[in-house]
This record gives sequence, C-alpha cells and structure tokens, in this order.
Amino acid sequence: MNWVIFAPIAAVASIFFGGYLFYKVYQSPTGSEKAARVSRAISEGANAYLKTLYLALVVVAAILSVVLIFLFGVETAVAYVFGAVCSGLAGYFGMQVALMANAKTATAAEGGLTKAFPVAFNAGGVMGMAVVGMAVLGMSVIYLIFEDPQIVLGFSFGASSLALLAKAGGGIYTKTADIGADLVGKVELNLPEDDPRNPAVIADNVGDNVGDVAGMGADIFDSYVASVVAVMILGAALHSRHPETYGIIYVTLPILFAALGIPASIVGVFFVRTGEGQNPTRALNMGTYATCVVFALLSLGIVLLLGINIAVFWCTIAGLIAGVTIGMTTDHYTSIDQKAVKLTAEASQTGAAINILTGFSYGLMSIVPPIIGIAAATLVSYFVSEGMGMDGLYGISVSAVGMLSITGMIVSSDAYGPIVDNAQGVAEMAGMDPDVIQVCAQMDAAGNTAKAITKGFAIGAAGLTVLALFAAYAETVGLPSLDLLHPIVIAGVFLGAMMPPVFSAMTILSVGKNAFKMIEEIRRQVREIPGLLDGTADPDYASCVRIASQGALWELVGPGLLAFVAPLAVGFLLGPAALGGFLGGSIFVGVIFALFMANAGGLWDNAKKYIEDGHLGGTGSEEHKAAVIGDTVGDPFKDTAGPSINTLITVMSLIATVFAPVIARHALPTVFGWF
Amino acid sequence: MNWVIFAPIAAVASIFFGGYLFYKVYQSPTGSEKAARVSRAISEGANAYLKTLYLALVVVAAILSVVLIFLFGVETAVAYVFGAVCSGLAGYFGMQVALMANAKTATAAEGGLTKAFPVAFNAGGVMGMAVVGMAVLGMSVIYLIFEDPQIVLGFSFGASSLALLAKAGGGIYTKTADIGADLVGKVELNLPEDDPRNPAVIADNVGDNVGDVAGMGADIFDSYVASVVAVMILGAALHSRHPETYGIIYVTLPILFAALGIPASIVGVFFVRTGEGQNPTRALNMGTYATCVVFALLSLGIVLLLGINIAVFWCTIAGLIAGVTIGMTTDHYTSIDQKAVKLTAEASQTGAAINILTGFSYGLMSIVPPIIGIAAATLVSYFVSEGMGMDGLYGISVSAVGMLSITGMIVSSDAYGPIVDNAQGVAEMAGMDPDVIQVCAQMDAAGNTAKAITKGFAIGAAGLTVLALFAAYAETVGLPSLDLLHPIVIAGVFLGAMMPPVFSAMTILSVGKNAFKMIEEIRRQVREIPGLLDGTADPDYASCVRIASQGALWELVGPGLLAFVAPLAVGFLLGPAALGGFLGGSIFVGVIFALFMANAGGLWDNAKKYIEDGHLGGTGSEEHKAAVIGDTVGDPFKDTAGPSINTLITVMSLIATVFAPVIARHALPTVFGWF
Repeated sequence: MNWVIFAPIAAVASIFFGGYLFYKVYQSPTGSEKAARVSRAISEGANAYLKTLYLALVVVAAILSVVLIFLFGVETAVAYVFGAVCSGLAGYFGMQVALMANAKTATAAEGGLTKAFPVAFNAGGVMGMAVVGMAVLGMSVIYLIFEDPQIVLGFSFGASSLALLAKAGGGIYTKTADIGADLVGKVELNLPEDDPRNPAVIADNVGDNVGDVAGMGADIFDSYVASVVAVMILGAALHSRHPETYGIIYVTLPILFAALGIPASIVGVFFVRTGEGQNPTRALNMGTYATCVVFALLSLGIVLLLGINIAVFWCTIAGLIAGVTIGMTTDHYTSIDQKAVKLTAEASQTGAAINILTGFSYGLMSIVPPIIGIAAATLVSYFVSEGMGMDGLYGISVSAVGMLSITGMIVSSDAYGPIVDNAQGVAEMAGMDPDVIQVCAQMDAAGNTAKAITKGFAIGAAGLTVLALFAAYAETVGLPSLDLLHPIVIAGVFLGAMMPPVFSAMTILSVGKNAFKMIEEIRRQVREIPGLLDGTADPDYASCVRIASQGALWELVGPGLLAFVAPLAVGFLLGPAALGGFLGGSIFVGVIFALFMANAGGLWDNAKKYIEDGHLGGTGSEEHKAAVIGDTVGDPFKDTAGPSINTLITVMSLIATVFAPVIARHALPTVFGWF
Repeated sequence: MNWVIFAPIAAVASIFFGGYLFYKVYQSPTGSEKAARVSRAISEGANAYLKTLYLALVVVAAILSVVLIFLFGVETAVAYVFGAVCSGLAGYFGMQVALMANAKTATAAEGGLTKAFPVAFNAGGVMGMAVVGMAVLGMSVIYLIFEDPQIVLGFSFGASSLALLAKAGGGIYTKTADIGADLVGKVELNLPEDDPRNPAVIADNVGDNVGDVAGMGADIFDSYVASVVAVMILGAALHSRHPETYGIIYVTLPILFAALGIPASIVGVFFVRTGEGQNPTRALNMGTYATCVVFALLSLGIVLLLGINIAVFWCTIAGLIAGVTIGMTTDHYTSIDQKAVKLTAEASQTGAAINILTGFSYGLMSIVPPIIGIAAATLVSYFVSEGMGMDGLYGISVSAVGMLSITGMIVSSDAYGPIVDNAQGVAEMAGMDPDVIQVCAQMDAAGNTAKAITKGFAIGAAGLTVLALFAAYAETVGLPSLDLLHPIVIAGVFLGAMMPPVFSAMTILSVGKNAFKMIEEIRRQVREIPGLLDGTADPDYASCVRIASQGALWELVGPGLLAFVAPLAVGFLLGPAALGGFLGGSIFVGVIFALFMANAGGLWDNAKKYIEDGHLGGTGSEEHKAAVIGDTVGDPFKDTAGPSINTLITVMSLIATVFAPVIARHALPTVFGWF
C-alpha cells in the first residue's frame, strides 16, 4: 500500500483548517475607520513590495528553469517552479491574513487580552497551516507523479530560491525602515514609537510583515522541505543498495512524518489559550509542548505499524529535544529577566561602547548550548541508528525531520509576533485608548520571546537540515568520504567558511546604505512639509515605503548572485571534494554566525527594553541612549543578516546537490584529470 | 655533515647583532629629567606586571612539567621549561629596550625624523633579533642534544604556553587601561591623549609595552617555533617510512631555514633608512622586501647545495608571497586613505550605530583576500610538491616556515610601533616642544600601519602553521584520513569552531569588566584629589597600574583553562578523530575571527583618526563622538581578542600533538571499543 497518498490528504486538511482559522479572524470586527485606514496603508505598502519581489523571482526562476531544462530535463524545471510557487502562495496568503488581522486585533483588545489574543494567534495559525499544507501538498504531489527524489529536490530548490530572496530582501527592508524611523524619529525628534507624524512609520510596519511574516515563513518552508528531501535522497540510495533491508518506505518516510506533523500542530493550536492576567508566552509554549507530545506518539505509532526500524523513532525524538532545547537556551540569553540582558543594560552606564562589547560577547557565548545541542543530536542519532542496524547518516537526517515536524505550530507562534507588533502600531496611530495599547504591548512582549525562540529553532533546524543535505550531496556526487587532511578539502572549507561572514557584511552594508537614504528622506519631509510635527499635516508615507522597497530589491542582487555562483564556481573549478569542503565550511561558520547574530540582536533589544522599563534611569537617560545604539547595531544582526544565513546555507547546499551530477562529470579537475 | 650546527651559530650572531643595536640605542641620550621620570614610571609598571605574569607562568609550567614528566619523561619536561624560558627571555629583553627607548626616541626627535627614527627602529630591532635568536638557539640546542622532534615539540609547547598567557594577559591589560583612560579622560574630562593629569595615562603606556611588545613577541615566537616543529615531525615520519627518498635533512631543514632567515633579517635591517620629510612606512616596507629577496636567494642556494627536492624552494616562495599579500591587503582595509575607512568615517554622520555596523561589515569583508591567500598557498605548495615528487603535506608546512622566515624583520618593525607610540606619550607628558610631538606623531602613524601589517602577517602565519600542526597531529595520532562526513568528526568540528568565539567573548568581557573598575578609579581620583585637573597635584598612577595588572592576570584563568582543558576533554572523551575535527574547526573559525577582529579594530581606529585629521567636522563634532565609540568597540577586537586567537589555535594544536600518543591509547572510545 502506498502510504504517501495520506500526505496530500493531511495537507488538504491543513489548508482547510487554515481556512477555518481565517474565517474566525475574518469575523472579528476591524473597528474604527481610522484603524482601517492605517491597516490599509500598511497593506498597500506590503503588497506593492511583495509584487515587485515576486516579479524579481519570476526573472530568477525563468533563468534557472532554462538552465535546469537544459541540464536535467523538463520535470526538474517544473518541480522547481512549482516549489517557488507553493512557497510563494503560502507566504502570500499568510501575509494577507496578518495584514488583515492587525486592526482586528487592536480593536479586539478593547475587550481585553482574552478577546484579542485568539484573533492574533488564529491569524498566525493561518500562516502556519498554509506553510505546512502547501509544502506537504507540493512535495507529495511531485513525488506521486514522478516517484523520483531528484525531482523533489528540484521542488526544494525552487522553495529555497524564493526563501533567499524573501528572507534577505525582507530583512533589508524591515531594518532600513526600522533604523530610519528610530534614528530620526526617536533620537532626533523625540517622537514615541509608531507615532503617526513619523514619515517612516508605515514603512516600519510594512517591514514587520514582509520580513517577519512572509520572509520567516519562506525560510522555514525552505528548511522543512529540504530536510524531507535530504532523507528521501539518502533513503533512495540505501534502498537501491540494500532493497531487502531498506524498503521503499525509507524513501517516503519523511513525507509521512511531515504529514503526521499536521494533526499534531492542529492539536497544538487548540492548546493555545490564555485568560485575563495570564502570560501569553505560557500559552504559546503549551501549544508547542502539546504538538511535540502528539507528534512523538503519532511517529511511534507509525513506526510500529509499518514495522520499520525503531531507531527512526529515537532519531525523531533526539531532533525534537534538540529543537526545544535550542529554543529554550535562546530564551535564556535574550530574555529580559536573565543575567546576560541585565549585565548588558548595566554596561550602558559606561557608555555605548561597553554596552556593545558586552552584548557582543554574550551573543558569542550564546552559541554554546545550541551547538552542543546540534552536536549531541547528531551523535545520538548516528550511534543509536548504527547500534540498531540502521544507516547512521540516514538517522541524522531523520532527526532533522523530527525537529521540523512541529513546523506548523512554530510558524503559527512566530507569525503571531509581527501581528501583535502591528496591532500595537495600529492602536497608536489610530489614537486608541491607553488600556488597549497596554494589552497590545503585553501581547507584543510575548511575541518577542516567541520570535526569539522560533529564530533559535529555525537556525538549529537549518543546521541539522544542511548536515543532512551535506550527506545527500556526498551521496549524489559519489564521494564515499571527505578527507579534511586533503588540501583541496581544506581550501574548500576555507572558502565556504568565508561565505556567511561576507554575505552578512553585504546585507548589513545594504541596510546601512538604505537607512542613510531613509534618514535623509525623513529629515527632508520634516524640513519641507509645514505642520508635520504639530500633526496638522500628513507625512508622505509612500515615499518612505518606496525607498525601503526599491533599496531592498536592488541590494539583493549582490548577495543573491554570490549565493548562486560561489558553490558552482568552487565545484566546477576545484572539483566535487572542494565543493564538499565548501559546504562543510559554510555550514559550521554559518550556524555560528546565525546563532550569534540572532541572539546578540535580541539581547541588545531587550537590554534597551529593560532600561525603558524604568531601570538605570529609564527612557531618556544617558544609559538609555547608549542602549539604543546597541539595539540599532543589533537590528540588522537579528533581523537581516542572522536569519538570512539559514537560507544561504540551505540554498548553497541545494545548489550543490542539484548540480552534483554535472559537477561530478564536468569539473575542471575531472576533465583534465588533475587530482 | 650535520648542517644543524650552523643554526646555533646564526642564533648567536643574531643575539650579538641585537646587542649591537642595543648599544646604539643605549648611546642615545635620555634627555630631560622629566622625560626620564615618565619613562621610569612606565618601566616600573611594566616590570611589575611582567614579574607577576612570569610568576603565574611558573605555576602553570610547574603543573604541566609534572604532567609531562609523568607521561613522557624528563626530556620533554625540560624542553618544555626551556621553551618557556627562551620565549620569556626574548620578551623580557625586548621589552626592557623598548622601555629604555621611549624617552630616548622622544629626545632624539628634537633633532628631527632622521635622528629619532633610527633610535626607535633599532630598539625594535633588538626585540626582533632576540626573538629569532633565542628561538633558533633553543630549538637547535634541544635538537642537537636529543635528536628527536618530539622533544622539540615540548620546547614549542613551552613557548606556546607562555605566549597564551603573555598575549591574552597583555591584551586585557592594554585595553583595560586604554579604554579607561579614553572614556573618562577624553570623553568626560576633555583631556587630550597622553595628558599627565589623566590617572590612567601611565597604565595606558605600560599596556603598549606589555601587550604590543612582550605579548606580540611571544605570539610570533610561538608561531615561528611551531611551524619549524610541524615540519620536523612530518619530515621524521617521511624519513622513517622512505629513508631513501627523504634523508635526515628533511627533518632538520626547517631549523636551517629559520637560521637562514637571520642573515636575511640583518640585511633587511640595514635597508631601513629614512630621510627628513620621507615616509617611515616606506622605509619599513623596504626592509621587509629586502629581507624577502635575500631569504629567497639564500634558500635557493641551500636547496641546490644540499641537493634536496627543489619543490622545497617553491613552497617557501609561496609562503613568502602569501605572507606579504596578507600584510598588504590588511593595509588596504585599515589604511586611512582607503575607501573602507572613509566610508566608515562618513557613516558616523548618522550616529555611532551605523559607524559600528559599517566597520563591522568591512571587517568581515577584509577576511577575503587573506583567506584566499592562505588557501592559494596551501594548494600551490601541495600540488607543486606532489608534482615534483615530494609529499604534499610536507610542502604545505614548509610554506609556513617560508612565511615565518622573515620573522626577525617583521618583529623589528612591529616593536617599533609601541616604542614610537610611547615616545609620543613621553613627549606629551614631559611637556616637550610641539615640533617634537609632531615628529613622534608622524612616526606613530607609520607604526600603526606597521602594526596592522604585522598583525595580518602573524595571523596568516599562524593559519599556515596550525594547518601544518594539524597534519603533524594526524601523523602523530596515526590518523591516515579525517572524514568530514563522519558524525564524530562533525561533532568535533562544531565544538572546535565554538572555541575562538567563546575565547574572544571571555577576553572581551574581561576588558569590559576591568575597564569598568578603571573608570570608577579614575572618577574617584578626579573627585577626591584636589588640584588634579589644574595640574597642581599628581594623580595616583600606581593604583591604575595595579587595577590593570591584577585584573589582567585574574581574568586569564578562565580562558587559559579553557584552552588547555577543552582539547584534552574532546580527545579523551570523543577520541582522536573528534579531536582532529576539533582542531580543524578551531583553525577555520579562528583564522576568520582573528582576521576580522584585527582588521575591524584597525579600521575603526583609523576612521576616528580620519575625522581627527579635520574631516567631517573634526575633533569634538558629533561625528567624532560616534567614531570614538566605534574605536572603543574595536580596541579589544584588535588588541585583545583578535591577536590572542592566534595563540589559542596554536596552543590547542600543540596540546593535541603533544598528548596525541596518550590520547590514541587511552581515549574512552578506544578503551571501550565504541567506534
């Protein structure tokens, strides 16, 4: 019996459940005309950006499709385009609901937390369900039609191409607007956050949606699909070598596991409930734990039912535990009531430099628990598998799928963050009651924690996934081993290790450059529009939206090209072993940089919030000014460079794996028989 | 004929030449009583610190000696202690001359650049000659007595232990004092640099000597010896396997090459001359080029004379070219008249945050040319060697020796930097003529460039050296290959990759913590000593010196333990392959972090200087304040964490290689037969 057929059914269920959540959000009233107007302005900006982004993607996809048709035939190209479309659709619908929900959440907040929280969380849930639904649907349909993991790899590559553009572009967009709005608005003009007189305020809120909703959704979609594909490739290799031990089920298993994650996430969503005066973070965590438990039970059931090696179950559990641990430790280093944040805030007493040095250092320290988590998950999965008579590398890649199985729930909590952030913005701009703003702020604090945990989870998952892809690459290109003592591998590792820092530098410089333009534009408006600061004249929001949008897309060209060209150049010029080293180097350094940047950024942000909560002189003190500088440094760390590194290492691993057959045959060293 | 006998002769010549340079410095007059007094205060502070540091070293060395005697017998322990003593003596004498020369240089500056430059450069030359002299003497004597590379490895380990303490401790010391002096002195009290009313001014000048003279000398001594030892170990393995192809000369060759570097450096020193109105940087570069050319000729001669494989010569050249290239590109990213520095300075217009983000990004970009240089040197040496019938890994390690052969000249230029920096301090504090201060400032600018080039060179050399040690470790522990696809290696790489960031974080946090105490003390003195700011009462310099000194030594405990314990823990718990991966991970990430931190720090420093030169509003403008924050962030990057990473990766590689035989036998996985 072909069990894969259950995957599209679960996927459709997921999409229907997303539709149900959408309906619940839709029913909630939008509220006053003023709130609706603000929400509309954000929507227009976000949609205009997404339109241009998808247009840029069409160009990239068209070029790559031609290359893929030429090299691998039409099937792979079709799967590639389908992957990009599925991920794009999930991001598009998810963002529409988020855009719709901001004003509705703010309005619901008039009835307190119990009313507002479900609106925001259900809207996030639409994104979560759309991501897993579209991903599982796409992969299973492609597999059912072609029955070839290499074609599913094309699907994954399509999703990854979109993710790179969406995440890096969204990251540049959101921080251009945020830094511009903060530096002029808060520091020069002394306006509060989300003040409607700030010309960049709409761009700032648009940024939350395109970066944190659409971008993060595409990023996790990408890891999710890639982890499944890596297992399929390794499974197919095992199946062809030892068909008696490894049945075809070892190829389709990861799709089944992904499908099982859907009911688990739906159950998890129902566990997320909060009452008046309760902490929304607890509600979100409860949902995550419930999803984990349900998924663990389901996976144990399916493993027993199908009679496959029980090691699969233990690897899944190892991945799940590692994922949750990484999320928790992220929380420890970035949470406002922990030592690292407090010490960083206290360092502001001797100025911005020591604040930055302290946050930088704790950010570096924060990589220890997640890296030990990833290493432990790797070792445990490997040795448990080998001990139980299953291939160890297959076990490692199953643990990545295990970690990512709860994606539906994770994306739901994550998308909740920018929605409540926007809701607060709408409430401020629409001049709502201070009580309402207070409810929104409370939800927003929980959203920040959820975002930090999700980011840690996403990086950990990407780390395990790229390790699985690394093995899949070696399998596809035909490398039985990769000797780290060989100079060609060493050179490859050095070159690969360079990529995450260089990519980070490019995206951060882009933010700096665009923020500079944004600041000039805000200053110009303040100078040239009479009555802007008294609130008697409206600023020109659209021109700020345009600067953020155009800047983000133009600045994508460099890092995007680098990500696509570098692995191919290394592969064709230095050969498959060098490319293997290159992937390894990019993974090790990439995970470190991604974790460090995400955590340091979150830490500086919360150190500032700690002071704003009234400690060390509070808002407006010298300490606060120092902490604002730290926060601004951290902004592109945590929302631009850090999270984009995930997609960078995934997309490079996928490129290497997709092109592996061609590289194996046509690399210069192979052709000339050099080494 | 045993050619090694020429090595101690060259070493003694080097020491005599150092004595000659010392005599020339000694003859130069110290000048006014006031200048002598300032110089004496710096000397006292530096010597007090060095005494405590060496005392700490005695404790570490005693413990490790017992361990070494127990595990490997008395010979290794003796070599270990001898290594630490030789490096310590070189550092001690070099620093004494530097301390003596600061006032003499300032006084000579009354006669202009032509008078002052030779005093400072000759004093630096004493350090250069002491380092290569003591290193070659020590290694050759140990080898002549025991004729066993494994015992020379003990010597190298001793030098490395000292280097770790001297470099990290000196780095913490110098930046504690510098940041403390700047943040209160310049920012709060508006005092100029090196103002005698600043209580931390003596500590700041002491820091230059203990960090940049003694620390850097120990660091390069360490790499220099380690590169020679790595070649000896690989050569001995080749000799025992194929004695017909690889004669015993392949074991002793690196000592000979190091010895040849001595006459080359002496010639180079004579090429360093400058006239009035000329740029001292040019003079220093001329010396380096001359040394390279002479060394290339000498090495070609000896290769032909001894009839060994000509590939050795080409590998040497590859190393030399890579070293010089790395130095030059460092200059490109940190030099005051280049794009990166100017753009970072301009970014200060939108505040400190964008200045920091820009400098951070260019710092990350700056790793590209050196890493390509290291990768190219590795590949070229390997393939040239293999193509000419010589072992490729041996070729790579020879290129590291080639790169380090010009150490005498490099250390001379490098030590010149802090001497002129101190001279300027003495001139300011002794109230000398503005013309004199101007001459000192001119020499100091050249010193900054020299320091930046040396730092790039030191990191590149350490990179190649640790790659050679990496091969030597694998050889000693008996690993024929190291499969990057094996999870135990992957776990090792992840753990090793974590080390440089964590070590950096620990040292930076130490600086932050100590600077905080220093700032408190300066503020206390300003508050409690009446007349301090009018210049009618002297500050209590000694208490600031004490804070820097004690803080630095206490803070060494954590990072020092980490460096010694982590590789042993990984080796014994996870086995030799994991430790191999661990070394690999620490090398790749270590080189990236070291380059990034050194260059970013230099860049921020010069961006500040660019503004102080009158651009963008000049000193005192908002742009300047922003750039000062960037400079302060960069201080521990470039002078504490960055350069200490060199010694960290060298000492960890040496520990692994020294303990390799024990680990191979007694690691848990070996004992229990796990994997």
